[in-house]
Amino acid sequence: NPSDSPKPTKVQELYVYEINERDRGSPAFLKLSKKEENSLGDLVPFSNKLYTGDLKKRLGITAGICVLIQHVPEKKGDRYEAIYSFHFGDYGHLAVQGAYLTYEDTYLAVTGGSGIFKGAFGQVKLQQIVFPFKLFYTFYLEGIGELPKELTGKPVDPTPSVEPSPAAKACEPQASVPNFTN
Amino acid sequence: NPSDSPKPTKVQELYVYEINERDRGSPAFLKLSKKEENSLGDLVPFSNKLYTGDLKKRLGITAGICVLIQHVPEKKGDRYEAIYSFHFGDYGHLAVQGAYLTYEDTYLAVTGGSGIFKGAFGQVKLQQIVFPFKLFYTFYLEGIGELPKELTGKPVDPTPSVEPSPAAKACEPQASVPNFTN
Amino acid sequence: NPSDSPKPTKVQELYVYEINERDRGSPAFLKLSKKEENSLGDLVPFSNKLYTGDLKKRLGITAGICVLIQHVPEKKGDRYEAIYSFHFGDYGHLAVQGAYLTYEDTYLAVTGGSGIFKGAFGQVKLQQIVFPFKLFYTFYLEGIGELPKELTGKPVDPTPSVEPSPAAKACEPQASVPNFTN
Repeated sequence: NPSDSPKPTKVQELYVYEINERDRGSPAFLKLSKKEENSLGDLVPFSNKLYTGDLKKRLGITAGICVLIQHVPEKKGDRYEAIYSFHFGDYGHLAVQGAYLTYEDTYLAVTGGSGIFKGAFGQVKLQQIVFPFKLFYTFYLEGIGELPKELTGKPVDPTPSVEPSPAAKACEPQASVPNFTN
Repeated sequence: NPSDSPKPTKVQELYVYEINERDRGSPAFLKLSKKEENSLGDLVPFSNKLYTGDLKKRLGITAGICVLIQHVPEKKGDRYEAIYSFHFGDYGHLAVQGAYLTYEDTYLAVTGGSGIFKGAFGQVKLQQIVFPFKLFYTFYLEGIGELPKELTGKPVDPTPSVEPSPAAKACEPQASVPNFTN
Repeated sequence: NPSDSPKPTKVQELYVYEINERDRGSPAFLKLSKKEENSLGDLVPFSNKLYTGDLKKRLGITAGICVLIQHVPEKKGDRYEAIYSFHFGDYGHLAVQGAYLTYEDTYLAVTGGSGIFKGAFGQVKLQQIVFPFKLFYTFYLEGIGELPKELTGKPVDPTPSVEPSPAAKACEPQASVPNFTN
């Protein structure tokens, strides 16, 4: 493996849906602050399902933890610091870190990756569609090779009614990526 | 956004003060080890205020978690693994990870960023001034564009008596960055 | 420090053994899910010892946290999301994030580093040898200068019986890196 590889710098967009289908026991809301209101001290491990932006394929799962930072009463929401990964089966994974606000879109840092995402850097836009069950992400990725076709289909516009295709939901072979993470 | 951007490699220094003004309920010391002494198993979510190195402007907040790794009796202190972000309002954020020792300066990794810090990498020196209330950071940043002038004022020497300007403490518009994180 | 440094892109391999010698109170298994079976909600801070791939030198420690994501009954194991660092004494550290499966090798992202590992990126292969006491890592590192000779000795093949040299285990000066992390 000791070989010289010029660092690619093209920005590639990757669209991903994260959906909580309420079948993974997620999130686990740990009220460690012992306060009634959401407060610093509460921790929220979570893991949801991932689909391609065109909702035609099951990709894998998210996995990680949200650290509650602050309840924001004027927004009727909360600020979290989120540290998690997007696992895409045989394609590998992307690691991210940054703010998750329950009331506003944010950008998180892409801190690295594995597989086809080895050496990835850049940022990702997090858009909440239906709190806390449907989220839409736009990754702006650098440092990696050309993304495979099945990951770069035209994304479905993020609206509250979006649903993965029944075949993707059922993880049928033609509607999931190789060895999708489950 | 798919455009070619040559990766900048100049090292830029960024100076930042982190101050715990004891008004954010931080840190939340979770004694999950159930041991009297600080021990592996204890977790410490935290969030403090950030000011520019010249102490003239409020920048935002830190947000994240310290994992207690080890009590170090001969140093009368503790080793933590720290995973957190520096949020700078509209400018974006920087994500870091590494050792936090209560008795010694350390260098942490800059793992990524967003906004003007998108694609950031490098390291950051953490200097304790008044444990655990005042810290001074020197970021050595690569991978980003030229830092804005208001972030690069001449830093005040880190001594125990340093204080943000009253205007910065009051978050007055001319003494805070655009949409500073609060 | 503001100087131009062309970004190195050679992939360098670094071999490391992580061994739990059961003398650090690690791991701290926090059963916060309150469920009998390992479940989302459980958290596992940990810190083990690190040796060079040739098992001749003590390097330092790992430090971080595993977030239990899922019990996988058909594999009689568990999926974790792991967020931790490898501390190598005066050489600095490497930060990583990704999946840790108790029943299968995985690749994690290298998200950054400090010291000689400043600006590191790439991925690392995690191989379980004796669960959960002995692990073997192959880092594929980019973004850094040439690794020092004492870190790049020929690795011992990862088998269940591998042990660090007695001198390394005893942290003798000639069998440990400068200021090895303890």
